[in-house]
Amino acid sequence: MNSNSQCKGRQSLAFQKDVYIAGSSSIVGKKEGEGPFGTFFDQVVEDPLFGKDTWEEAESAFQAEAVKTVLEKTKMDKSEIRYIFAGDLLGQAIATSFGLMEFEIPIFGLYGACSTSGESLMLSAMTVAAGYADHVLAVTSSHFASAEKQFRFPLEYGNQRPLSATWTVTGSGAFVVGTAKSKIKISGVTTGKIVDYGVKDSMNMGACMAPAACDTIYQNFMDFQIGPEEYDKIVTGDLGFVGHDILVDLLKDRGYDIGDRLTDCGMTIFNDEEQDTHSGGSGCGCAAVMLSANFIRQLEEGTFKKILFVPTGALLSTVSFNEGQSVPGIAHGIMIERC
Amino acid sequence: MNSNSQCKGRQSLAFQKDVYIAGSSSIVGKKEGEGPFGTFFDQVVEDPLFGKDTWEEAESAFQAEAVKTVLEKTKMDKSEIRYIFAGDLLGQAIATSFGLMEFEIPIFGLYGACSTSGESLMLSAMTVAAGYADHVLAVTSSHFASAEKQFRFPLEYGNQRPLSATWTVTGSGAFVVGTAKSKIKISGVTTGKIVDYGVKDSMNMGACMAPAACDTIYQNFMDFQIGPEEYDKIVTGDLGFVGHDILVDLLKDRGYDIGDRLTDCGMTIFNDEEQDTHSGGSGCGCAAVMLSANFIRQLEEGTFKKILFVPTGALLSTVSFNEGQSVPGIAHGIMIERC
Repeated sequence: MNSNSQCKGRQSLAFQKDVYIAGSSSIVGKKEGEGPFGTFFDQVVEDPLFGKDTWEEAESAFQAEAVKTVLEKTKMDKSEIRYIFAGDLLGQAIATSFGLMEFEIPIFGLYGACSTSGESLMLSAMTVAAGYADHVLAVTSSHFASAEKQFRFPLEYGNQRPLSATWTVTGSGAFVVGTAKSKIKISGVTTGKIVDYGVKDSMNMGACMAPAACDTIYQNFMDFQIGPEEYDKIVTGDLGFVGHDILVDLLKDRGYDIGDRLTDCGMTIFNDEEQDTHSGGSGCGCAAVMLSANFIRQLEEGTFKKILFVPTGALLSTVSFNEGQSVPGIAHGIMIERC
Repeated sequence: MNSNSQCKGRQSLAFQKDVYIAGSSSIVGKKEGEGPFGTFFDQVVEDPLFGKDTWEEAESAFQAEAVKTVLEKTKMDKSEIRYIFAGDLLGQAIATSFGLMEFEIPIFGLYGACSTSGESLMLSAMTVAAGYADHVLAVTSSHFASAEKQFRFPLEYGNQRPLSATWTVTGSGAFVVGTAKSKIKISGVTTGKIVDYGVKDSMNMGACMAPAACDTIYQNFMDFQIGPEEYDKIVTGDLGFVGHDILVDLLKDRGYDIGDRLTDCGMTIFNDEEQDTHSGGSGCGCAAVMLSANFIRQLEEGTFKKILFVPTGALLSTVSFNEGQSVPGIAHGIMIERC
């Protein structure tokens, strides 16, 4: 191990220094712009097609815009970015391939469902801490319409949604992770395992993912020999209201009552009662844009000193679901703090 | 950068020491077993369903069997593996999620189409060289029937295949990458960019991927200031006969006549004339099982001293294809040598 990093316990790494989030961006759709964090996103795109012909091309456009925006904000040229770690929810990650091709940067395609924003930040931090790059990009996206088309029903059906269903966030977040000192650093990571409690309801993904979130948060505490008091906030990705309550119970069973330290990007990105989003927002864009527009901002402002960012993923496809498989979950933990 | 590694040029890393392939496994289907390398694979599974109910579950079973086999061959317990880097071709990588869940190892899901075997080995090597793990697993798979169902036509249609089409390999390869000295080491990697020449024919993926292979091979030469004579073989993944010829021409245009140093896993895994596989084999299982059963074996036996393994991926989905998008390619280069 190089002197900048240390293996911790069974699933974690600690970075002693030098892994900073130099900047981030959040590009969202109209509905997200109408939510409680609307004024904090870098850009609210009113046209859900973003001027393109298809939902998939639109999602790619959100990714490209997120990258351009973070490069502008950090005053960096694309030639200074050595690698991109990126992914999305669509089959064969086409939003990523077509969205990021134009930048001509060596790329690692990732898939971890809605945990991908965590996976991309984790591999970015590992790559920078190892000295393999001065700066890399972590990029993820989701789009309500491309996700509904992929996983559920054509929008034109106007199908009813159960109260446990989440609303896929239209948006993309991009993060420059690098060695140049900034206010925000990634100090450690806990890589998740796939956890399957046998839940088979794809309209209740919170319940599918909560056990994985519990596993990763608990393992983070064990590996670093810390408790919830280490963090000002523990931020899950898109458990939504249903999954959040399950996670609270599961953590209590393991001896941790983390109470109001626990929050969830999906629960907070929309004003649920007014915006009719049921269990909350979801998608790998959800956690990414909320990390950028809310949590990193609050770390920079000093409201928080340290958070554990735990995006959660539900590992299913329409094929696995239709064939009667369960929906396993995965969650990755990223320790982000103010320097 | 830690002392064991060095950034090379624009896209490459050199590992000075300590990154070994401790062992590998190859589990293939009946047709692959009937090909010229049939006797070299660890296991030929006659039943294409591998005792399961669906093609996707069967593909998962190939992955699980590949992992069990490589753990047996290396006499390792799953608890000694710190991370898995894995992926497959199916939407939302379900073959991987359901295939590897049982091992309860922290996992990074990857997607790089048929280049995923290279991506998984590359991230494995980077992780080990950085000291983040003593041993990790790189696992990929593909399955003829699950891929045809995903990307082309139901098998029951009995559709005709153009001569440029490839035959998706049924199989999975797994590699233990770690610090324990073995005969085979990974000495460097060149990460690929997405390259799009605008080819739109999903039945001619070789043509879509050849420009990316050329780009990565050329960049490997530039970054390390070497030429083709550095390698006994340059092994592309699944360009097939059509893509191979294009790659030879593209490299000639850049001043390199690499002639019979160049070989392709897809071109060689089947006996094309007898097995009616047209342009050759493909799929992220193809390059993985051929690397394990043929190239690593020949490195161990001393036939080769050093190879450049360049699995290639065609970045498309049925959605992107049906919406008229081109098929961009990506290729990653892994420098593998006998110690």
